Amino acid sequence: MHLGLVGLGKMGGNMRTRLRNAGHTVTGFDFNPELADVDSLAAMVEALGADGSPKVVWVMVPAGDATRSTIAQLKDLLGEGDLVVDGGNSKYTDDAINAASLAEKGIGFVDCGVSGGVWGLQNGYALMYGGAGCDVAKVMPAFEALKPADTPDGLVHCGEKPGAGHFAKMVHNGIEYAMMQAYAEGWELLDKVDIVDNVPEIFASWRTGTVVRSWLLDLLVDQLRADEHLDGVRGYAEDSGEGRWTVEAAIENAVPMPAISASLFARFVSRQEDDHAMKAIAAMRAGFGGHAIQSMPPAGA
Amino acid sequence: MHLGLVGLGKMGGNMRTRLRNAGHTVTGFDFNPELADVDSLAAMVEALGADGSPKVVWVMVPAGDATRSTIAQLKDLLGEGDLVVDGGNSKYTDDAINAASLAEKGIGFVDCGVSGGVWGLQNGYALMYGGAGCDVAKVMPAFEALKPADTPDGLVHCGEKPGAGHFAKMVHNGIEYAMMQAYAEGWELLDKVDIVDNVPEIFASWRTGTVVRSWLLDLLVDQLRADEHLDGVRGYAEDSGEGRWTVEAAIENAVPMPAISASLFARFVSRQEDDHAMKAIAAMRAGFGGHAIQSMPPAGA
Amino acid sequence: MHLGLVGLGKMGGNMRTRLRNAGHTVTGFDFNPELADVDSLAAMVEALGADGSPKVVWVMVPAGDATRSTIAQLKDLLGEGDLVVDGGNSKYTDDAINAASLAEKGIGFVDCGVSGGVWGLQNGYALMYGGAGCDVAKVMPAFEALKPADTPDGLVHCGEKPGAGHFAKMVHNGIEYAMMQAYAEGWELLDKVDIVDNVPEIFASWRTGTVVRSWLLDLLVDQLRADEHLDGVRGYAEDSGEGRWTVEAAIENAVPMPAISASLFARFVSRQEDDHAMKAIAAMRAGFGGHAIQSMPPAGA
Amino acid sequence: MHLGLVGLGKMGGNMRTRLRNAGHTVTGFDFNPELADVDSLAAMVEALGADGSPKVVWVMVPAGDATRSTIAQLKDLLGEGDLVVDGGNSKYTDDAINAASLAEKGIGFVDCGVSGGVWGLQNGYALMYGGAGCDVAKVMPAFEALKPADTPDGLVHCGEKPGAGHFAKMVHNGIEYAMMQAYAEGWELLDKVDIVDNVPEIFASWRTGTVVRSWLLDLLVDQLRADEHLDGVRGYAEDSGEGRWTVEAAIENAVPMPAISASLFARFVSRQEDDHAMKAIAAMRAGFGGHAIQSMPPAGA
Repeated sequence: MHLGLVGLGKMGGNMRTRLRNAGHTVTGFDFNPELADVDSLAAMVEALGADGSPKVVWVMVPAGDATRSTIAQLKDLLGEGDLVVDGGNSKYTDDAINAASLAEKGIGFVDCGVSGGVWGLQNGYALMYGGAGCDVAKVMPAFEALKPADTPDGLVHCGEKPGAGHFAKMVHNGIEYAMMQAYAEGWELLDKVDIVDNVPEIFASWRTGTVVRSWLLDLLVDQLRADEHLDGVRGYAEDSGEGRWTVEAAIENAVPMPAISASLFARFVSRQEDDHAMKAIAAMRAGFGGHAIQSMPPAGA
Repeated sequence: MHLGLVGLGKMGGNMRTRLRNAGHTVTGFDFNPELADVDSLAAMVEALGADGSPKVVWVMVPAGDATRSTIAQLKDLLGEGDLVVDGGNSKYTDDAINAASLAEKGIGFVDCGVSGGVWGLQNGYALMYGGAGCDVAKVMPAFEALKPADTPDGLVHCGEKPGAGHFAKMVHNGIEYAMMQAYAEGWELLDKVDIVDNVPEIFASWRTGTVVRSWLLDLLVDQLRADEHLDGVRGYAEDSGEGRWTVEAAIENAVPMPAISASLFARFVSRQEDDHAMKAIAAMRAGFGGHAIQSMPPAGA
Repeated sequence: MHLGLVGLGKMGGNMRTRLRNAGHTVTGFDFNPELADVDSLAAMVEALGADGSPKVVWVMVPAGDATRSTIAQLKDLLGEGDLVVDGGNSKYTDDAINAASLAEKGIGFVDCGVSGGVWGLQNGYALMYGGAGCDVAKVMPAFEALKPADTPDGLVHCGEKPGAGHFAKMVHNGIEYAMMQAYAEGWELLDKVDIVDNVPEIFASWRTGTVVRSWLLDLLVDQLRADEHLDGVRGYAEDSGEGRWTVEAAIENAVPMPAISASLFARFVSRQEDDHAMKAIAAMRAGFGGHAIQSMPPAGA
Repeated sequence: MHLGLVGLGKMGGNMRTRLRNAGHTVTGFDFNPELADVDSLAAMVEALGADGSPKVVWVMVPAGDATRSTIAQLKDLLGEGDLVVDGGNSKYTDDAINAASLAEKGIGFVDCGVSGGVWGLQNGYALMYGGAGCDVAKVMPAFEALKPADTPDGLVHCGEKPGAGHFAKMVHNGIEYAMMQAYAEGWELLDKVDIVDNVPEIFASWRTGTVVRSWLLDLLVDQLRADEHLDGVRGYAEDSGEGRWTVEAAIENAVPMPAISASLFARFVSRQEDDHAMKAIAAMRAGFGGHAIQSMPPAGA
């Protein structure tokens, strides 16, 4: 099929390559002219639909304003029966808004969570999508090319409602947070005690035959073998929106989520120069027990 | 090699089979005469060492009293240069005590954590062991037979100190708790919201190409496909000692362990008929706000 | 002063009494005619401002739709220079919307979090309010009557921005959740171990001289003395919006909130007939280890 | 009564003063001769029992080795019918050992948790004690002098078993951890958002009429008024043994303790220069997503 693709960064660029490798035609647009195939969204849309088929545009830009603005422009450029696919990391609640807006002109909408990172080009991307079956059908050839080969896995229709795909991808990421935290907590303990040696090889041994074997474990083994105590890595982790939204959705639905929320909060703490809440605890301790407060050095000291 | 094996339950029985399939000789003892090859520990020890090699006895009985008592009897039956392997789920602190006791008679000791469950017979067991290299060498042929074939994984010498193997296995189980909790929290959210359908297939799709792919995920998919909302499964989980010991070891070493401890506490709660702590909260709420207490029905009602 | 008061339930009714006891005039409206002084909002507004002073209406109805609808009606009935006070448990993000809407007609808005429960009539209410100083001044006589006597405490201007008061009250409730959870966890442990007797008197002894003394402790002691093991109390707690919003605001601001979130999740779990997430864990355990699943009894059994 | 007192540090010294103020005779020993009344334990014991009454020695030294060693020496110096009181922060499991050892010579033992910190001299100490009634009676006059005046609170017999008092004090401290964490989390959120001003006065206002009023709140208000954002306080908190033991006891008794454990782990994290577990998460993220690792600067840079 012929696909328009907006956003040719690390993810979008690799996806274009994988689609082309599968024989599809991709016309890509990006604000960076070195990456783009055409010099405007309009030119990209112009190139589509030459054979009379619906125009299908895949949006792969940052969630929030960039996605909203791109979809608003596409609404002007596309028409009845065309399709927009949001493959970015949009919040699931945005999808209903975008779908309704596009529907005013008869343009279809499919939301699609994409997992795979830098490995996706080679191994395929896992795709979780939501939307009406007739819309999904229009982009299915691209889905088939992007997904991992030789498996029914990696492709799932999560529901008819807009946002179903992004919701599933969001929860995937929430689960990922707690899995990573699980390995990290276990590693810290093993790395700190005297009783065990050879911690990287302990993790390596777990890759076969154990209950904790996983792809994340494989990745961690590679890193530990290169830097046994991770001395060269700063203990600092960003969080993307999905982890936060997962916990918010859990709260909204009265779903207990102690491990995933703990994983999110651990990331928050890792980014604090000085532990903010602990200032209050130190202050109270000083108040009741004569525990000495550790003063902050004056700035510049 | 010729190995004595004490404890022929689900795990021990399968291990005997796998060892025999690999060409080793196993003399097994169990209190259940239908499972045992000989009718006493003494008879088992008697059968070993016919070719002048050290006698090696693998103990595969419940942690705690049963293991302690078995090792005490073996201390009487074995001699200088022989070896006891504790392959059960002993607490790592027990190992130094057992090793020191056996050393009084010159008997060696190796502790070995074993992972693999009912799948081990076919796929091999992951083995994490601790002890002196010369002792490990005496049981290595059995290790080689038990471990998964065709991989360097599944076998690791965790340290010279007694308990190194059980410590590593303990942390493995702690990690396992939080990984399971991660999937469970994500599943509960997906299962409760209206926006997604088809939750079992969402999990199935994750098995290829995603960050959360793992063996535990594979197992969960099988269960969800058989019972979409797990209506037939009671939300109740036991915990073995390893999860508790992992958190205790973390506390002793000032290692933060929020996700693993949350997973452990979630299991505790799942086993309470009525939520005990929440009684106190309900009582306080009644005290300050006139919130109605939900009374317990009288017994028998 | 003369105040209009909408909502004469447990809280509003007691506040009317405390205001009248202080010499103020209150015209109250409620949908329940047995509680109301007048038979419509319009009649209530009509009664105000006889002396030419601004009309001040205090809204004390459930957060969300009821508050929104009441304020919309008051917008029609009031005019330039009048004031609406939202004393309910509104979410702080609602306040900016209500304030902006009322401002279109020159009507002022103050949001006010109220703490005190059934004890407020006698001891006074703690009031946390937000809004412009000129608006606050119009309702200050009522604030002075409602707050606890003989103390500067119990009354605080949290900021000029609409929502400042409700935000502070929301965080107050979040803190309350974790304080209650703290006592509840400690109580469960003491109640379960054999080593201590006389748990209610242990809690009673803490009321003087200890670090954990508080009003919540006082309340808990009364309940424990009446029912030592709280056998008559079901371990079940509702949560109001404030606890959820506190955690959501924390997530939005990257503030780690492990204890307050744990307290919220504990309430969620207490309301589940069967522990939902634990079904998935039980299912995985059955998959890897031959751990028996506890089946749910068939419905009606 | 005449009491021997071992350990005259901040706590012990103040207790001696309060006992003497109440008219009791105290002979104190400390390794610091400037604090001591006598120059040896033996001299202290020698001074006791002149009127034929049992010799009562209160031990107020650091938990663990110092307490064990002191009690071992007292066992030699005391005799049938005498009494040792352990008023330190001993782990409850130590008490049964010490009691059994002293019982070999007919010496009684009472364990006593003491709360009150630097405020105890003036306001009295809260005492939680365990032991046989006949032993408790021998030290009761001292208990009456140490406890807060004019209240039945502050004094409780927690059980006959040795360790009952220390167990109750331990749980008291566990509760204290989570209460402090509750205020700290709420404060961090209020301190970070733009919507509220005047955070110290918000906390001050809560001291009367609210559900969260407590002595800890009073202390925090004093600190916040002196340093609004606690800029001069480092976000760092030690933990004493009691918090750890509380969580360990909870685990041993299958008591869920999410908030207290979260509070303990938060302290652990606050003491880490670089967040250790987060190194592993950063490493995994680098592995799957091309997320840049923040490298540690080379030492000395």
